[in-house]
Amino acid sequence: MYVCDVQSELGMLRIDLKSTTPVYEQIANGLRAELVAGRFGPGEKLPTVRRLAIDLGVHHNTVAEAYRQLANEGWLELKRHHGAMVRERRLPRAGPEGKERFARPLRELVARALGEGLSPNAVAKEMMKSARKLGRGAI
Amino acid sequence: MYVCDVQSELGMLRIDLKSTTPVYEQIANGLRAELVAGRFGPGEKLPTVRRLAIDLGVHHNTVAEAYRQLANEGWLELKRHHGAMVRERRLPRAGPEGKERFARPLRELVARALGEGLSPNAVAKEMMKSARKLGRGAI
Repeated sequence: MYVCDVQSELGMLRIDLKSTTPVYEQIANGLRAELVAGRFGPGEKLPTVRRLAIDLGVHHNTVAEAYRQLANEGWLELKRHHGAMVRERRLPRAGPEGKERFARPLRELVARALGEGLSPNAVAKEMMKSARKLGRGAI
Repeated sequence: MYVCDVQSELGMLRIDLKSTTPVYEQIANGLRAELVAGRFGPGEKLPTVRRLAIDLGVHHNTVAEAYRQLANEGWLELKRHHGAMVRERRLPRAGPEGKERFARPLRELVARALGEGLSPNAVAKEMMKSARKLGRGAI
């Protein structure tokens, strides 16, 4: 398994070098989850690109690309020499296709888990757990 | 939106050219979901690479790559000039890391949906729906 778990200031980020998901995207996905979870509030600074790149053992361009993606999504404000600051971000309203955009990858994720041998029961439990968390305002 | 929905013999496959997920992987993900759902039984033939490539409007190498991935996962048997046949596939037993391998991408998927403006309630509902489906032996 070419998976590397890195405990950084940002919590646990997982990078899987065997995945077809680009590494910068994996980093962005992990950070986005922390941002949505409210782990970092507006005005807070993220670690510098250099710092995180060292922690993760990846090229700093890879981290910079992840930060750029999150900046494009409105999560971060990037300032030259001043790193990345978490922005006050209003959630857009998802259009009618929003639900479908979640349902389809969810189904594919479930299929992959079942295909890898996870029991339907375990998968269902995990989703119920996640749904309950959302009900409590967490993710 | 560079998304193309294609109704083929295989049901609805969605290809998103803007996604960072390679197209062959998107095809494999969609097909895997159909296979896990039992839409094709052991011994059944999938459309030829050429046929599906035409339906999807992609290069046949892209479809061939998707079929190869599914063959590597044990879903398909590929025969020269005879196309792809669905195999009798025993599900492996997921190791202890199996649950985590589902929980993490699930959390990231939820975060992405919330970030795109889907309400926590809508996301939770979708997961409950999926969990109930699993309880009925469907996906």
